[in-house]
Amino acid sequence: MKYTDVFVIGGSAAGTVAASTAKNHNPQKKVTLARLEEKVMVPCGIPYIFGSLEDSSKNIMPDNGLINAGVEIIIDEVISIDEKEKFCKLKSGETIFFDKLIIATGSRPINPSWLDGKELDNVYYIFKNKVYLDKFNENLKSLKNIVVVGGGFIGVEMSDELKKAGKNVTLVEMQKTILSLAFDEHVALTVEEIVKEEGINLITGNGIKKIIGKDNKVSAVELQNGEIIEADAVILATGYAPNTKLAESINLNLNRKGFIKVDEYMRTDIKDIFAVGDCAEKRDFFTRRSSGAMLASIATAEARVAAMNLYKLSTLKTISGTITIFATAMNGKGFGSAGLTETQAIDEGFNVVTGTFEGMDKHPGTLPGTSKQLVKLIVSKETGIILGGEVIGGMSAGEITNIIGFIIQNRMTINSLLTAQIGTHPLLTGSPVKYSLIKAAEVVIKKINS
Amino acid sequence: MKYTDVFVIGGSAAGTVAASTAKNHNPQKKVTLARLEEKVMVPCGIPYIFGSLEDSSKNIMPDNGLINAGVEIIIDEVISIDEKEKFCKLKSGETIFFDKLIIATGSRPINPSWLDGKELDNVYYIFKNKVYLDKFNENLKSLKNIVVVGGGFIGVEMSDELKKAGKNVTLVEMQKTILSLAFDEHVALTVEEIVKEEGINLITGNGIKKIIGKDNKVSAVELQNGEIIEADAVILATGYAPNTKLAESINLNLNRKGFIKVDEYMRTDIKDIFAVGDCAEKRDFFTRRSSGAMLASIATAEARVAAMNLYKLSTLKTISGTITIFATAMNGKGFGSAGLTETQAIDEGFNVVTGTFEGMDKHPGTLPGTSKQLVKLIVSKETGIILGGEVIGGMSAGEITNIIGFIIQNRMTINSLLTAQIGTHPLLTGSPVKYSLIKAAEVVIKKINS
Repeated sequence: MKYTDVFVIGGSAAGTVAASTAKNHNPQKKVTLARLEEKVMVPCGIPYIFGSLEDSSKNIMPDNGLINAGVEIIIDEVISIDEKEKFCKLKSGETIFFDKLIIATGSRPINPSWLDGKELDNVYYIFKNKVYLDKFNENLKSLKNIVVVGGGFIGVEMSDELKKAGKNVTLVEMQKTILSLAFDEHVALTVEEIVKEEGINLITGNGIKKIIGKDNKVSAVELQNGEIIEADAVILATGYAPNTKLAESINLNLNRKGFIKVDEYMRTDIKDIFAVGDCAEKRDFFTRRSSGAMLASIATAEARVAAMNLYKLSTLKTISGTITIFATAMNGKGFGSAGLTETQAIDEGFNVVTGTFEGMDKHPGTLPGTSKQLVKLIVSKETGIILGGEVIGGMSAGEITNIIGFIIQNRMTINSLLTAQIGTHPLLTGSPVKYSLIKAAEVVIKKINS
Repeated sequence: MKYTDVFVIGGSAAGTVAASTAKNHNPQKKVTLARLEEKVMVPCGIPYIFGSLEDSSKNIMPDNGLINAGVEIIIDEVISIDEKEKFCKLKSGETIFFDKLIIATGSRPINPSWLDGKELDNVYYIFKNKVYLDKFNENLKSLKNIVVVGGGFIGVEMSDELKKAGKNVTLVEMQKTILSLAFDEHVALTVEEIVKEEGINLITGNGIKKIIGKDNKVSAVELQNGEIIEADAVILATGYAPNTKLAESINLNLNRKGFIKVDEYMRTDIKDIFAVGDCAEKRDFFTRRSSGAMLASIATAEARVAAMNLYKLSTLKTISGTITIFATAMNGKGFGSAGLTETQAIDEGFNVVTGTFEGMDKHPGTLPGTSKQLVKLIVSKETGIILGGEVIGGMSAGEITNIIGFIIQNRMTINSLLTAQIGTHPLLTGSPVKYSLIKAAEVVIKKINS
């Protein structure tokens, strides 16, 4: 039997940041983190263990942040919570009493119960588990034809890395375009060109019907249009569901999408119990709708907020709505998206004006290594507030996406963007005369004024 | 005799953006731009014509922005302004009547009148003039030992490019560290390591006393401590002064530093006459002091504001204070600065708290091409407002500096930064767990709370 002031369940991005921030903010409190795995995978690095990183040993989240902060780490499974007496039971038999509990149990790949053939050998999911991933990676080595199902970021990144590792890769996406949660159709089509240039066989607007096996192993997939694609392995990257078994066991309220309901301070509806990361509810910054976004960066922001509000609330330190900020890269091209796409904004009922500009990521464009840089802005016509942005460019696209994130968080309007001050440098940014973000804003204002 | 609605004098970054924005915002108006040169240099690209770009033909600012907007370009010199009758006389004899005048006459290298030897052959300045630069570049080809005087961005970039082009380069800076307007001493020292790694002979805390000649050509420089450095050429990168001859001829008010006084709309004190860019007054965003900063990015922001306020004022479209946002790069390392340095903030009387964090620009740090990424934040203790930031990292450092610029423009506080939502990706940004900007904010809050 042990006592800890703060007990964190889960050791991925959310749990790690929640625990270290809690300890940093409350040095006098005892903070303990329990997690399942000895070694934790950097979640967004997982696709790269199949290619660029070569294996999972280079993708381990270091424990030094936790250790330096003074957090105690327990490798064990929490099997039950007693929310009244405030203790947890661990699989090892240990009991941990707590004052504050932070649930950061994350998410797991969705199991498509309707899919025939999913039980065959060589059907894989992207679990965030080193032991599973090592075996998966090892097994793939001898296989050639890989079908990746699901054109979200993970599916796209897996396809890219496996292609680089010399596989024949087919990426299957049911929607009209890949990455449809992040990019409007015309932007997604540009991204698809990059994917195709990599030599990936891209199939869109056509879902998978079933997986076909031979000798209990994958041999092909059948698409909804009847097409058969030969396959030695199938990777199902069709989304994640929140892990809420423990939360449900104490009757924490879940929302309609199955996430643990939380307030702006990341508190659940039971006193002293917080939830953060993939298992916790997110509401969109603008639309206020429940969002299914699962990103380590969102998780860590929530974790910081929970940890800073454990012992005293601060109305200045809240999650006032989730802004989905994605980015990824392929073959030296980065692309990212922040906030709402045009499609999402219109679906929600916003009257929008958009502006797209294609500039360069260096200047003059004659400099070696210059990439085109496209920026699209989605603006509310009524208020001029920037609702979202999409970027395709070189390797600075990730941080430009973050600039758009900061623009959204500050509820900046098109006027403040038109007069924004930026810094430029030939080797690092677009030109001061044609900085894509500002030029896209000019396209918007021209439409508004005309 | 001609009439134009809007007449812009000057064809570099400020003039070009002022003219094209004026025309885009007022399609029914006639907009004319007069400039001295047939071909305009991209100003911040100038150092690169001595190395990476090979020659000036790759550093020409395209006219298509002006032409597509419908701006008339005149290659001629404006020799006088009649502000009462509203016309300009050109050197060719032409007279241009105008309704609105935008002065964008820029700046020129400071001529150090006290410096003996400055009249010798092979003493150069960084004029923004293609003809001058081509001759300069050509002459340098046969010379080996180059002394660059002045460790601001231009001096540092020139040194780097000339070193790459195979010269022996000595960079002389009078201040204790190079780039002292952008970086506090401890950050500047890290930048100096990068400069030294490039093989540049760096001398700091020691100014130039005189240039020594032989047969009317440069042969050496003598430093203030008496040291003699052999030199075949000397490049004086010791700052710029605003070009205000025309402005003075019509008695426009200048400030103590010699810049044309302007208001938030970039209007001078004569009706219908605006000034933008290096010749126009800048006041610091926080300190409200007159600033000597000259950057194309500042110039273009001013140009947009002037152009948008020509015919109707908008209180939403103003320059409410200049934020100095610099960035540069050397050998794959980018470094930048936005807002006030700690030294500047303390000099001005702010009670500041700072936080510095060194993370990585990719994650996990085992990914090929990962650079360290240092972020320093300067925060007002009283209000928590972020006053400035400094960044050293890989090639995303320029856009991270822009993120800090947006943070400053929005007067974000340390609390809003601690809860900020960012997007991360292994290949494009630091880790969500250790994103340098957020971690630096955590260092600050820990100091404030302790």
